[in-house]
Amino acid sequence: MKKMIGSPGTMSGLILRLGQCATAAASIGVMVSSYDFSNYTAFCFLVASMGLQLIWSFGLACLDVYAIRRKSDLRSPILLSLFTVGDWVTALLALAAACSSAGVTVLFTKDTEFCRQQPALSCDRFQISVGLSFFNWFLAAISSHTMFWILI
Amino acid sequence: MKKMIGSPGTMSGLILRLGQCATAAASIGVMVSSYDFSNYTAFCFLVASMGLQLIWSFGLACLDVYAIRRKSDLRSPILLSLFTVGDWVTALLALAAACSSAGVTVLFTKDTEFCRQQPALSCDRFQISVGLSFFNWFLAAISSHTMFWILI
Repeated sequence: MKKMIGSPGTMSGLILRLGQCATAAASIGVMVSSYDFSNYTAFCFLVASMGLQLIWSFGLACLDVYAIRRKSDLRSPILLSLFTVGDWVTALLALAAACSSAGVTVLFTKDTEFCRQQPALSCDRFQISVGLSFFNWFLAAISSHTMFWILI
Repeated sequence: MKKMIGSPGTMSGLILRLGQCATAAASIGVMVSSYDFSNYTAFCFLVASMGLQLIWSFGLACLDVYAIRRKSDLRSPILLSLFTVGDWVTALLALAAACSSAGVTVLFTKDTEFCRQQPALSCDRFQISVGLSFFNWFLAAISSHTMFWILI
């Protein structure tokens, strides 16, 4: 089995997972703290997919900590297949959610005067949350490619 | 080199490419024929990414026809790498465009009364065009996985 940056059970893998946890939690926090995000399906989808990503990467971070402390090897084919499928599914959902929210945010801020007409609407927070979700997707894409590369 | 369904230079590969061409062209046709789609960034992005997909899959369809008639083998590593990268980039753009347009379409049809307030707006066409673009992305995802699998 190859050893790569971001491999499961390594420090770089743990850092990658913690980065995913942090960006997912931040994206959720900013979106949920904004005024009436729940009226828009795309933003609800963003919170849901970042929640899934948070749970998934937190779980794998705990597994990494366990493996580092016990010096055990997590690169068995079955475990890696599970990690690969999980990473690809959560990364795909993160991308879909980030893009649909970006479409709505651009509509609010650029295509229409919606943000200027409704100053109460926290358009800045929507943009920050969407930006964080794209960053989260980028980290998830690195993980999914790393897992897949180790697996084949 | 493995021989798989959808391989370049085979009939199944050609059918897959023609399917991508047809869905991309249909998605563009329906969107462009709708009233004032160009006011919305997400829909312009959809037309652009489906246009790229149309050019890419039409080019590869022509290559397939040439290879089938000449009975030549297109599965050289360099060609396959080119196909793989091209397929992955166009598939990713197709997914991003489809999701952002879906976010805006759901906002119009479900989250707000926008479609009912503006009967002139062709919301049905937006939905059909977005549906076709997801179907196109699905076909593109098959191609990109097939190319990658043959390559490794």
